[in-house]
Amino acid sequence: MPTQFDPPSGTRDFLAADWEVREDAFARIRSVFAGYGFEPLVTPAFERLDVLLGKYGDDGDKLIFKILRRGEREGTGEADLALRYDHTVPLARVAAAYGSQLPAPYKRYAIGPVWRADRPGHGRYREFAQCDLDTLGTASVLADAEIICAVHDVLTELGLRGFRFLLNSRRVLAGLLEAFGVPAELGPGVLITLDKLDKLAPGEVIAELTGRGLAQAQAGTLVAALTADDAVEKIRDALKTSDEGAAGLDEVDSLLSLVAGQVPRGAVKFAPRLVRGLSYYTGPIWEVAAEGGAGSLAGGGRYDHLIAQLGGPDVPATGGSLGMERILLLLPKREAGRTRLDVAVTVMGERHAARSFAFAAAARAAGLRASVYLGNSGKLGRQLKWANDAGARWAVIYGDAEEEAGTVTVRDMASGEQVPVPAAELAAYFAELAA
Amino acid sequence: MPTQFDPPSGTRDFLAADWEVREDAFARIRSVFAGYGFEPLVTPAFERLDVLLGKYGDDGDKLIFKILRRGEREGTGEADLALRYDHTVPLARVAAAYGSQLPAPYKRYAIGPVWRADRPGHGRYREFAQCDLDTLGTASVLADAEIICAVHDVLTELGLRGFRFLLNSRRVLAGLLEAFGVPAELGPGVLITLDKLDKLAPGEVIAELTGRGLAQAQAGTLVAALTADDAVEKIRDALKTSDEGAAGLDEVDSLLSLVAGQVPRGAVKFAPRLVRGLSYYTGPIWEVAAEGGAGSLAGGGRYDHLIAQLGGPDVPATGGSLGMERILLLLPKREAGRTRLDVAVTVMGERHAARSFAFAAAARAAGLRASVYLGNSGKLGRQLKWANDAGARWAVIYGDAEEEAGTVTVRDMASGEQVPVPAAELAAYFAELAA
Repeated sequence: MPTQFDPPSGTRDFLAADWEVREDAFARIRSVFAGYGFEPLVTPAFERLDVLLGKYGDDGDKLIFKILRRGEREGTGEADLALRYDHTVPLARVAAAYGSQLPAPYKRYAIGPVWRADRPGHGRYREFAQCDLDTLGTASVLADAEIICAVHDVLTELGLRGFRFLLNSRRVLAGLLEAFGVPAELGPGVLITLDKLDKLAPGEVIAELTGRGLAQAQAGTLVAALTADDAVEKIRDALKTSDEGAAGLDEVDSLLSLVAGQVPRGAVKFAPRLVRGLSYYTGPIWEVAAEGGAGSLAGGGRYDHLIAQLGGPDVPATGGSLGMERILLLLPKREAGRTRLDVAVTVMGERHAARSFAFAAAARAAGLRASVYLGNSGKLGRQLKWANDAGARWAVIYGDAEEEAGTVTVRDMASGEQVPVPAAELAAYFAELAA
Repeated sequence: MPTQFDPPSGTRDFLAADWEVREDAFARIRSVFAGYGFEPLVTPAFERLDVLLGKYGDDGDKLIFKILRRGEREGTGEADLALRYDHTVPLARVAAAYGSQLPAPYKRYAIGPVWRADRPGHGRYREFAQCDLDTLGTASVLADAEIICAVHDVLTELGLRGFRFLLNSRRVLAGLLEAFGVPAELGPGVLITLDKLDKLAPGEVIAELTGRGLAQAQAGTLVAALTADDAVEKIRDALKTSDEGAAGLDEVDSLLSLVAGQVPRGAVKFAPRLVRGLSYYTGPIWEVAAEGGAGSLAGGGRYDHLIAQLGGPDVPATGGSLGMERILLLLPKREAGRTRLDVAVTVMGERHAARSFAFAAAARAAGLRASVYLGNSGKLGRQLKWANDAGARWAVIYGDAEEEAGTVTVRDMASGEQVPVPAAELAAYFAELAA
C-alpha cells in the first residue's frame, strides 16, 4: 500500500546502497564512452512544449508530462513546457542551436532521467535513466561500427556476459521485400508483421501477411526462408538479386569485418529478421539480446533524416540507446550496504569531544572515511554498537584512561582486538591502515 | 536574441567543456562528504503537489513548477505533481517514509537540480544545482561542527581560498534581545531589521527599528553595540546577563573550539550580527562569505523542528547548503576545451579501415582516448586537421606505404615528428605513451 510518504507513482527514492550501484555503473559507462572520444551533453529537464509535441506519435504525446503556465496564466490550465521524453529530441535541438560550434562529427553521449506518464509496472517507471550514444554528421559505416563496439565494451565493463548483437540493415530489409516480390505499398506493413516472428508461430505470421494483402504463396515462401535452419544463407542468396539488397549486405559485411577484431567471435551476428519497430532507421540496425532471452539490453541504428524531422539540421546520424533499468537489474550484485565508515570515533564525554573530533579529521586526512559518534550515550558499548552498525572497520576510543596514558585505543571491529597507539603517532598509524 | 532552438528561459545546455567542470566539482564534493560518512540520497525530480505546496510561503508557492494531470484529466487544467523546489522537503518525506530503516543519525547529502520559476537573470536560473548536507536525529553540537568542517573541506578541495565562516546562534540572538530589553513581541521584526546592518547605514536601521515600535534610546544602544569596533566583546559581555544568551554563547564557543583544529586560524568567526532570514533555525547558524565580498557561498544551521513541520518525524536536525552556481563561477579556470583525444587514427582508404579501427581499439586497451577519422576525405592533410581540432596528442597513420613496410606511423601532433612503429609492437608502444 502506498502511503502519503511514498514518492509519486512510478518514481523511486534512491537511498545510498541503491544509488551507489547506479552511480558506479554510470561512471563506468562515461569512462568507456570517453575512451572512444564521445563527449557528454546535458540538456534541461524540460523543453518548450512545442519542441516535444508531435515528435513521438499520438501515443507518445499522451505520455508527455506537461508543465502548467505560471503566474497569471496558471488559471488558463495550459501548459508551455514539458519534461524530457528522451535524449534524441534535445540532441536535435542542440544540433540546430550550436551548429558549427560543435565538433564535426559530433560524437556525444547523454545519461540521465527521462519522464513518461506510462502505467507503472514491474521494471517500468515514470522516471527512469536513459543512456544514449550518437554520432552526428557522418555517413561512414565506421561510425556505426564504433557505436556497436562502444556499447559492447560498456556491457562488458559492467560485468555482463553472454549477450549477443543482432545486426541487420534497413537496406537488407528493402532488398528482401524486392527479392521476394512484395509490392512496394505493402512493404511497411509486411515488415511490422515479420517483426513478430519471434513471438508468433510461422502459420500465424503467414495469416497476418495474407490479411495485409500479400499472396498466400509469397507469404509462405518469405516466412519459410526467414525461419529455415539455413535462413542466413538463403537470405544472402536472395539478396543478391536486388541492388538495394546487395548494397545492404555489403553494409552488414563491412560492419561485421570492422567489429570482428574488437568483439569475441559470434558476439555480433547478421540477423535478417531483425526489423526494429521505429520507422526512422535508414541503414544498419542492431539490438543486443541478453543471455537466456531476458529481452533486449540495447538497440540502435542509422537514422539519416531524423534529426531534420525533429527540427535539427539535415545531417546523417547513427546511434544507440542502452536500456539502463533492465541492465541495472542484471548487474552482478555488489557488496550490500550503505556507504561504510572506515573509522568510527567514540566520544567519551564532552571533555574529550574536541580530541575525538580531531582524531576523525586525522583519519580523513589519511584518506579514510571517518565520523565521530553523534548520539547522547556516554556508554562505550552503545557507541561500539553504532560503530558496528555503521560498518566501521576500526573504532577509536579516547577516554580518561587514554588521556592519562597519552595514547589512543584503536579497536579492530572484526576481531575485537585493541591496540594502544601513542597519540602523537596516530596520523602515521592511520596512514598505515589506509595503505 | 533567443531562438526557437535555445533551451527554455532560465535553463542551460551543458556542452562537454562546461559539463566536465561541473561533473568534476560534484565528484570532489561527493568524495569529501563520503569521507565524513555522509550518504547520497537521490529523490525524484517531481513530488506530489500537496507535498510541496504551503512549505515555502506564498511567494515560494508561486515559484513552483506544476505538472498538469494526464489523460482524461488533462482538460481540467489542474496539476497533481510539481518539480522539486529544494532538497529539504524531499528529505523530510524520506525521513517519514523510511524511518527506522535509515541509519541513526541519518547523515545524507543531495546534489542535483532544483527548479524555481524565478525571473531569470545574471547567475539566476530556473534549473540550477543545489547541494545540501544534513544530519537528522541528533542534537549534538558535534553534528553542527561536522557540517561546518565538511563544507570548509569542500570549498578548499574545490580550490577556493580566503572565504570565511560567520558563526552565530539563534539562542545568542534571543539572549541579545533579552539583554537589550527588547519586548518579546517585537523580537522577530527587530531581527529582520538588524539583518540589514550590512546594507543600510546605522541611522537607517535605527529608524526602521523605531518604526517597528522600539524606543529610540534602545534602538540606538543596540545598533551602537553591534556596530562598535569591539562589538564582539561588547555583545559577549551583554549576553552574560541572559540565561538564553549565556547558553547560546556556550554553544558558539563549543563550536569554535571543535573546529579550531580543523580549519585555518580565523576561518570561522563569531558574528553576533548574523541573523539569516529563515525563521526555522533553532540553534547555531552560519554563513560562508566569499573573499572580497562576492556574496555568500554557503549557509546553514540547526533546525530542530522543521522536519516535523514539513511532514516528517519530529527529529533534531542540522545542515547546510552550498550555493553551487555561485561557487562554480568562482572556481579556478581549468584548461579549456572539450573532451580531448589522446590518439587520432587516420583512415587512408576503405581498404585500410579495418586495420585503422583495430589500432584505435589497441590505443583504448592501453587506456588512451582514441577515435578513427569518420569523415569522407581521403587526404592526409584534412585528416590531420581533424586530429588537431580534436586535440589529439598523437596521430596514427596507416596507408599503402605502411602496409608494405609492416609499420604504423605515429605522429607527435605538437612537434610534427613521425616515428615508424612495427605493427606488432604498436600495443606496447601505446602502453608506453600512456605511462
